[in-house]
Amino acid sequence: MKHTVTVRGAFHLERGGTLHDPVVEVRTWGRHSATATLVCHALTGNADADEWWRSLFAPGRILDPRRRFVVAMNVLGGCSGSTGPTSIDQATGSPYGSAFPRVTIRDMVKLQRQVLDQLGVSYLELAIGGSMGAMQTLEWAALYPEFVGTIVPIASGASQSAWAIGLSEAQRHAIVTDPSFMGGRYPTDDQPEAGLATARMIAMATYRSPQSFDARFGRTEDERGFAVSSYLRYQGRKLADRFDANAYLTLIDAMDSHDLGRGRGPIEAILRRIPTRALVVAISTDMLYPVSEVRHLAAMLPSARFAVLDSPHGHDAFLIDTDQLDRIISGYLRDAHRSTEITPHGRSWA
Amino acid sequence: MKHTVTVRGAFHLERGGTLHDPVVEVRTWGRHSATATLVCHALTGNADADEWWRSLFAPGRILDPRRRFVVAMNVLGGCSGSTGPTSIDQATGSPYGSAFPRVTIRDMVKLQRQVLDQLGVSYLELAIGGSMGAMQTLEWAALYPEFVGTIVPIASGASQSAWAIGLSEAQRHAIVTDPSFMGGRYPTDDQPEAGLATARMIAMATYRSPQSFDARFGRTEDERGFAVSSYLRYQGRKLADRFDANAYLTLIDAMDSHDLGRGRGPIEAILRRIPTRALVVAISTDMLYPVSEVRHLAAMLPSARFAVLDSPHGHDAFLIDTDQLDRIISGYLRDAHRSTEITPHGRSWA
Repeated sequence: MKHTVTVRGAFHLERGGTLHDPVVEVRTWGRHSATATLVCHALTGNADADEWWRSLFAPGRILDPRRRFVVAMNVLGGCSGSTGPTSIDQATGSPYGSAFPRVTIRDMVKLQRQVLDQLGVSYLELAIGGSMGAMQTLEWAALYPEFVGTIVPIASGASQSAWAIGLSEAQRHAIVTDPSFMGGRYPTDDQPEAGLATARMIAMATYRSPQSFDARFGRTEDERGFAVSSYLRYQGRKLADRFDANAYLTLIDAMDSHDLGRGRGPIEAILRRIPTRALVVAISTDMLYPVSEVRHLAAMLPSARFAVLDSPHGHDAFLIDTDQLDRIISGYLRDAHRSTEITPHGRSWA
Repeated sequence: MKHTVTVRGAFHLERGGTLHDPVVEVRTWGRHSATATLVCHALTGNADADEWWRSLFAPGRILDPRRRFVVAMNVLGGCSGSTGPTSIDQATGSPYGSAFPRVTIRDMVKLQRQVLDQLGVSYLELAIGGSMGAMQTLEWAALYPEFVGTIVPIASGASQSAWAIGLSEAQRHAIVTDPSFMGGRYPTDDQPEAGLATARMIAMATYRSPQSFDARFGRTEDERGFAVSSYLRYQGRKLADRFDANAYLTLIDAMDSHDLGRGRGPIEAILRRIPTRALVVAISTDMLYPVSEVRHLAAMLPSARFAVLDSPHGHDAFLIDTDQLDRIISGYLRDAHRSTEITPHGRSWA
């Protein structure tokens, strides 16, 4: 099912600014229930989780719609159906563009909460996502611990690191210095494609790993140059064709805002107070969110288990090595269920 | 001493094209000798090795000019005194710009060999360099094994990996899509600064590591944004002020060409035939040239030892952790000297 849900009224953003009647693009799978599973997407993802996480929706897999009521939403600030920079600003009658307010991961989650209320969902048995999706699951646990049973954040730390912020900044620089960007006020049919493509090329390299590029491309070369170079240029063009530059900037800014401690107190103390069960998954070859950083997050969460997805594919492994990912999560959920049966009262699962 | 050495005649390049009477910017330190130590610089380095590797030139250190005759040269294709894209093409009376021919690491080394002949140097007891400098030391051993006693390549593999080529391509894309690049025919006083700055920002991130950025910047933020972002923008501008975009493109292309096997045969067989003593150094946190890749190079060279510079600083550690680097190399050279004393005849040192 596909819905566009309007959240009536004024939606106030963490960093100031208000959106009126924001809309959210929602997909659902399975039989409607007050208890749902939420799938949170990564930077350039969308609500069509059954496309980019297809194998996890297969029969018997963790998102099998015969067993769960699954919900996915395009994030606030994106460009795949939810309110974002390409939406019409009712105050001006034109797209927001660069006038779109700054958005945080918390804003995304708070809006998702209101959408779930409208959908009649009163409990999330599971919230799962990779990268920016992981950040959303973590904020779900921090904002609404009573609303969510288990989170599975994959490939994110407790806050966006200086390293990841630096790589965002290189991408931001590529976009905003493209003269076609025009301070963000480009016409919708003539966006800064070259800058957005450069940003995507940087990102794609950091989403993979030396091992995966070596295995896939090596030093293969033809008259157009190295195969890896052609691949990255193609990925750059492809994103520039389908994604809006202002939305991209809005979302990398939101990722850079990710910090479970912001405005709440010392991050370790905040994390120790989150009771939600969590399976925190790191990827063995992730260059952006190294295993040590993800392990550190898991160590601070009192009811967390930590697992490593062993893959040569780097950060993107959560979209690639989905068989292994399913085994890790299924195993965890089975164990968690068993533990709960054994000690049903008074103990948090850890 | 500073010299500009002219290599008279036609200098034919590996990939076609000829340079007439190319010049090379040369620095020397210490008392002239027919036996020299060669220092090879990295991408944006130059012949002023006593500036960027100052501590290695200190008394008692491995490049102490009281003990060695040290030579450093700006590479062919650069923009710090040697013939490159900013040089005047005698055929047109204008700078080469984008018409400058493609250059390989081998071309750089072959030209260096001719310069050493002119300087009266007939033997290199040591050739040392990091990154692109390491590639040069490796080609020295491959091209002129009889001319060089020991090489110390730091932070490079046997060939440029797909991963490193991919990151070069993102940088190249940033430069060539900057409209100020004008197909490489920009006026010398109006180069594509934004694109070159983006390239430098990408590079600087990959030259460091998550650990080093986290320790130095964390999530420190002021009204201009995150500290790490300001730092990278500053580094971008600084390079755009001092380096020519066409020279940058020429040199990253040369680095991408790095492949000890190219045109010679299977790379393992080629490496096994290189008799030169080598201390191959990897950096523990290098994202561009991971330890495994550098260890693989060392394993293929029959007279190589392998060492790891243990540093949080990433690829750039060879310019930062110079005390530890000096200890590693000094220790190796002492041992090598001792081995040679014990088995002076008929055995290669390994």
